[in-house]
Amino acid sequence: MKGRLRAAMIGGGPGSFIGGVHRIAARMDGEYDLVAGAFSSKPEKCLETARELGISEDRAYGSWKELIEKELDRPENERVQVIMITTPNHVHAAPTIAALEAGYHVVLDKPLCTSMEEAHAIAAAVEKASGLFCLTHTYTGYPMVKEAKHQIASGALGKVRKIYVEYPQGWLSTFLESEGQTQAAWRTDPSKSGKVGAMGDIGTHAFNLAEYVSGETITEVCAQLNIVVEGRALDDDGAVMFKTASGATGVLMATQVAAGEENNLKVRVFGEKGGLCWEQKDNNTLTMMPLDAPVQVLRTGGPGTSEFSLANHRVPPGHPEGYLEAFANLYKNFAAHVKAQAAGEKQDPNLDYPGIEDGVRGMKFIEAIVENNAGNEKYTAL
Amino acid sequence: MKGRLRAAMIGGGPGSFIGGVHRIAARMDGEYDLVAGAFSSKPEKCLETARELGISEDRAYGSWKELIEKELDRPENERVQVIMITTPNHVHAAPTIAALEAGYHVVLDKPLCTSMEEAHAIAAAVEKASGLFCLTHTYTGYPMVKEAKHQIASGALGKVRKIYVEYPQGWLSTFLESEGQTQAAWRTDPSKSGKVGAMGDIGTHAFNLAEYVSGETITEVCAQLNIVVEGRALDDDGAVMFKTASGATGVLMATQVAAGEENNLKVRVFGEKGGLCWEQKDNNTLTMMPLDAPVQVLRTGGPGTSEFSLANHRVPPGHPEGYLEAFANLYKNFAAHVKAQAAGEKQDPNLDYPGIEDGVRGMKFIEAIVENNAGNEKYTAL
Amino acid sequence: MKGRLRAAMIGGGPGSFIGGVHRIAARMDGEYDLVAGAFSSKPEKCLETARELGISEDRAYGSWKELIEKELDRPENERVQVIMITTPNHVHAAPTIAALEAGYHVVLDKPLCTSMEEAHAIAAAVEKASGLFCLTHTYTGYPMVKEAKHQIASGALGKVRKIYVEYPQGWLSTFLESEGQTQAAWRTDPSKSGKVGAMGDIGTHAFNLAEYVSGETITEVCAQLNIVVEGRALDDDGAVMFKTASGATGVLMATQVAAGEENNLKVRVFGEKGGLCWEQKDNNTLTMMPLDAPVQVLRTGGPGTSEFSLANHRVPPGHPEGYLEAFANLYKNFAAHVKAQAAGEKQDPNLDYPGIEDGVRGMKFIEAIVENNAGNEKYTAL
Amino acid sequence: MKGRLRAAMIGGGPGSFIGGVHRIAARMDGEYDLVAGAFSSKPEKCLETARELGISEDRAYGSWKELIEKELDRPENERVQVIMITTPNHVHAAPTIAALEAGYHVVLDKPLCTSMEEAHAIAAAVEKASGLFCLTHTYTGYPMVKEAKHQIASGALGKVRKIYVEYPQGWLSTFLESEGQTQAAWRTDPSKSGKVGAMGDIGTHAFNLAEYVSGETITEVCAQLNIVVEGRALDDDGAVMFKTASGATGVLMATQVAAGEENNLKVRVFGEKGGLCWEQKDNNTLTMMPLDAPVQVLRTGGPGTSEFSLANHRVPPGHPEGYLEAFANLYKNFAAHVKAQAAGEKQDPNLDYPGIEDGVRGMKFIEAIVENNAGNEKYTAL
Repeated sequence: MKGRLRAAMIGGGPGSFIGGVHRIAARMDGEYDLVAGAFSSKPEKCLETARELGISEDRAYGSWKELIEKELDRPENERVQVIMITTPNHVHAAPTIAALEAGYHVVLDKPLCTSMEEAHAIAAAVEKASGLFCLTHTYTGYPMVKEAKHQIASGALGKVRKIYVEYPQGWLSTFLESEGQTQAAWRTDPSKSGKVGAMGDIGTHAFNLAEYVSGETITEVCAQLNIVVEGRALDDDGAVMFKTASGATGVLMATQVAAGEENNLKVRVFGEKGGLCWEQKDNNTLTMMPLDAPVQVLRTGGPGTSEFSLANHRVPPGHPEGYLEAFANLYKNFAAHVKAQAAGEKQDPNLDYPGIEDGVRGMKFIEAIVENNAGNEKYTAL
Repeated sequence: MKGRLRAAMIGGGPGSFIGGVHRIAARMDGEYDLVAGAFSSKPEKCLETARELGISEDRAYGSWKELIEKELDRPENERVQVIMITTPNHVHAAPTIAALEAGYHVVLDKPLCTSMEEAHAIAAAVEKASGLFCLTHTYTGYPMVKEAKHQIASGALGKVRKIYVEYPQGWLSTFLESEGQTQAAWRTDPSKSGKVGAMGDIGTHAFNLAEYVSGETITEVCAQLNIVVEGRALDDDGAVMFKTASGATGVLMATQVAAGEENNLKVRVFGEKGGLCWEQKDNNTLTMMPLDAPVQVLRTGGPGTSEFSLANHRVPPGHPEGYLEAFANLYKNFAAHVKAQAAGEKQDPNLDYPGIEDGVRGMKFIEAIVENNAGNEKYTAL
Repeated sequence: MKGRLRAAMIGGGPGSFIGGVHRIAARMDGEYDLVAGAFSSKPEKCLETARELGISEDRAYGSWKELIEKELDRPENERVQVIMITTPNHVHAAPTIAALEAGYHVVLDKPLCTSMEEAHAIAAAVEKASGLFCLTHTYTGYPMVKEAKHQIASGALGKVRKIYVEYPQGWLSTFLESEGQTQAAWRTDPSKSGKVGAMGDIGTHAFNLAEYVSGETITEVCAQLNIVVEGRALDDDGAVMFKTASGATGVLMATQVAAGEENNLKVRVFGEKGGLCWEQKDNNTLTMMPLDAPVQVLRTGGPGTSEFSLANHRVPPGHPEGYLEAFANLYKNFAAHVKAQAAGEKQDPNLDYPGIEDGVRGMKFIEAIVENNAGNEKYTAL
Repeated sequence: MKGRLRAAMIGGGPGSFIGGVHRIAARMDGEYDLVAGAFSSKPEKCLETARELGISEDRAYGSWKELIEKELDRPENERVQVIMITTPNHVHAAPTIAALEAGYHVVLDKPLCTSMEEAHAIAAAVEKASGLFCLTHTYTGYPMVKEAKHQIASGALGKVRKIYVEYPQGWLSTFLESEGQTQAAWRTDPSKSGKVGAMGDIGTHAFNLAEYVSGETITEVCAQLNIVVEGRALDDDGAVMFKTASGATGVLMATQVAAGEENNLKVRVFGEKGGLCWEQKDNNTLTMMPLDAPVQVLRTGGPGTSEFSLANHRVPPGHPEGYLEAFANLYKNFAAHVKAQAAGEKQDPNLDYPGIEDGVRGMKFIEAIVENNAGNEKYTAL
């Protein structure tokens, strides 16, 4: 399969943040053409976004159901191939399952959904589907996150012993949801976000990053979820001490009330032979800390990096790449797999992207910490 | 004018680095469709690139002249509007002038050209042209570079006294051009690069950044140009002490033999009331150093930043933006001006981009340092 | 009281690390003369150290008991005034109590002792004593740690909500104690260190720093203590989730198996109005993160700092002070209090130093985490 | 020779900054007893300082001449051995020469003096003297500066090509000397400082550091000296482009009007095989940048460091050492040489300290840049 993939977006209308990010990510490498959308449940808003994006009005659909159905009526060489879903969490499961069942490839914003039941239903749909499925755990798209994964997988640290992962934000330090801030409103609303607030929004990112980088499987959690800002319905802060299947331990911290903090997701892993550290603030750097040897600084595209990270960057070392490039890597790699599938070719393992397993793991994590936090037992199995 | 601008590229065929960067930059914000190209002087290579990019073969032209002429034959609503020129330096002037004379808008990779004569000719063509002209001094596209310019222009530092600007690279530390490295080959070849090597390639970036941020005009230079790697024909290293029209002074350092350095362009400006520092390695940070008050850290999109920088970023604070986003800002802002011109609207001053004056200044800088370096006078006027 | 205080040291003979550090700290500001010592339980080793230090051989005592007794026989203007105790943990309580009862001032290395019983006995002795007592929780001696305490106490962050404190070391990543490394041997030996390893050695530092800086009192802990290196008898790693009396929460991490880490103690506190961060690696910087305003960087001796931190540094801003200066601040401030007491003068609150309360709190922390770790209850009260 | 060296100080009375620094440095390692002083030309001020320091009043001398003479009258085992001179620059030559002629060892604050004539006279006195001479170019005392010197000397960078050294300060950004600030007053007064201001005060430090670290000899300079603050008599800012004997080139920047800067001396050296960077702000780090391999971070006391730097630090890696420890290294190493000389033993090359050659080089540098700045020739030989 040559050329650009035809894509449609569900969600991402006026006021959406993440919709615009998905569009930039999809555009960056020239692998997608956004040709249709159900951007909003309000028709005039949907049309407004379609016009801004230069999308033909007859492909600006009034609902995601309409989009899924009507596109099937088009000839195969015009029809949308990939559906990007960027709605609030409670509108993830239904369109995802419907799109997969209709034969589309799906890119879904994280977290997967709002309950284990939904998670299993999506997983079942993915299994049956002819199309592929990507869940946008963006942070695994960073070249130096991939390099970290590679270093650990190839034994640079020896057996993993300790994992620290943290995701501090400060933007919910005040009762922002009462002031009409759209992003704050739905993210703190149980009917739209699910059982958890900060832990679903960013805790799952931290959880995913920890497992992705370390290669470990978290099996037991001891959690503290807090509602710090008065009046809020869901946790805006929390910490988790955990154990892994191999006997390593770790700490996960996620908060949205670290006033003054931006978004500095950070992961550190230590093993028998050394440690490593990556943080979003300096995302093109991977700090390798061997036991009894000087610290080494790996850089995106720089000497000493692996084919894995080299396959996931664009410009020479020293030209900073960032969040949008990491996001674009997910889209770029997903496109490569979609095309390889169509061509019956083998998929390049260096062009990986997060999928259904990541989503299910995240939901299990949420279930376990909610249960643990509510009770008085020290640890809860995942 | 609504929708995407139709664009063509001259240069940027197989083996080109900067052509791909221009394409990503043009794609990122969905303001351009690349529909034509004269990617290479070799027809098969031109076709190869066209196919990769999904460009129709009848718009893959065998030469830039053909592109400029043939596109004029198309109906106005199909015809290319913007021509992006990413050829080596010695093939800048001719296609730029021809494209402007034919009525296209032009985006040209820097430096402007290889001599003052060419510079004056291009300037004359720009003046007469109906189309607009952008010279891609990328680094002025960074939000925090714009913030630095804003802070100084609005008086935060008081009268400017001192400017330090540096651009250290290490990639030409060996005689790479003898090993068939394409990038090294043309950049160190006087017939393709012009009178200077490192000073043209990156010294002009440093010069442009210094003047852009500080608002100062450099009037006198005292230069040391060095050929460090044996066998090389052009300078690969140099330093310039300078004076400005207002009485400030400064130092510019540019080198391609700082072995181990990546690409860390950095500018510092000090005035009566404080200083500031920006560096590419940490491009989303602007360090403000007031006299007798604590250092303040401004961040892309963060509190305390101006409308100027806010108009030139995409994602919330803490989601790193980088080189490609800076480059994309040039294309995005150029598109805004092209559309405003077409609509007869006022152009938003926050959406600035570098133009012909920047190019002419850069050529004057090159002329002056070459003259100064050759003689024994302390200072040479610009 | 004018001039230098006459001091003796218990412990600190050949092979000791911390004894030499205490001596540098005591010397730095010229407030002490070390004139006597019981440096080792082996007489020849005691003499060896005395000779190296230029201490008269008749004041090199064979045991700490002898030192305490014999010095009392000397005329008051010759007699030792301050006794510095730098023995392993299990030899803290007895000499401290004896020295206090004999009327000396005492400076004791941390942790206070190895059990709550000893802690109460020392506390009782301190209460009755005419002399003063200092426990060397070194890290509270850093100027920017004091600045952090001042900022929070003066309301810069508003009500405290969240505390993160971490102390990662890597030096016990291997089974070093089996290789005859003195420091590793006693620190991992329950008969010399007490009930805990890493948590006593560095966890108590982290705990002390958290309470000192935040002004909060930790009331409940949920702990995970781990023995990571096979064969080790005490914890070499651990984490604690905690709650404070005012309703804040936090996480404490202490590990000695973070292979590749040096000693980067770090504390972050977030409140309603902003956050702050201090870390030992960059000890002369305090990062203030106000909500909705740019980050401010306070520097030792720099603009915007308080009288509290200014009273605890020596050289102009930009001349780095470090660990030894922090340690010396404890000795300098203790000397000021000893002299003020002798003169019947008021003691300067800016010249603070850690005392018995810090020691007792540390022991309570150890008791609580050991109990919590052994059981299956989520939280244990302190 | 065992025990402490008896020392006297000339200068360092009330209001002096550097006198107190010398005293801390001399005290830190217990190698000196300060037993006498001519702290001020005003007797009551001299006595005041003596009393504060616990120095016997009969050794508080009214003038440096008296100190030098009267101490000779004391028995050899009481008499001062080392004289520390911390007077303003114009009172360096006379007491230094007199002290050396009288047989004392001398530690002199930098710069050496105020003219080439004085420099030659001091050099002659050093040559004839039985005593040793140390010039306190403090920055060469940093462990990681020594490591940098070692790395280059042992060939880690290959042949040196490029040197950048900078010393930005901001404290003279205003006309402070008109406000009665003691430090500003004498440092900007030609009758006390000599022919240069910033270049003598900090430019010579930068020059010394560049030559010490790189092992290169600067042979030609092209200088720009500026008086930025109106009313000032001496340069408060300047830059120098230079060439070395081996064919390397470099840039030196020194300014005292970089408003907002503290004291961040920084040196970078690049050679055929890589580069290195050291800066005072992060003084325990040496960044090694090999060509085509990842950056390595050497740390004071850490893995991969040489015996040279290991011989010049005190506490384990991760416990920051700073400016005072660097200064103390000069005193400690000087004491080792004095004692080795007395014992007829070989001097340890790892315990180096700056001497008369450093001082003479500094004066030659000043002469050359003053001459070059005044004329219109491009380069002046040193």
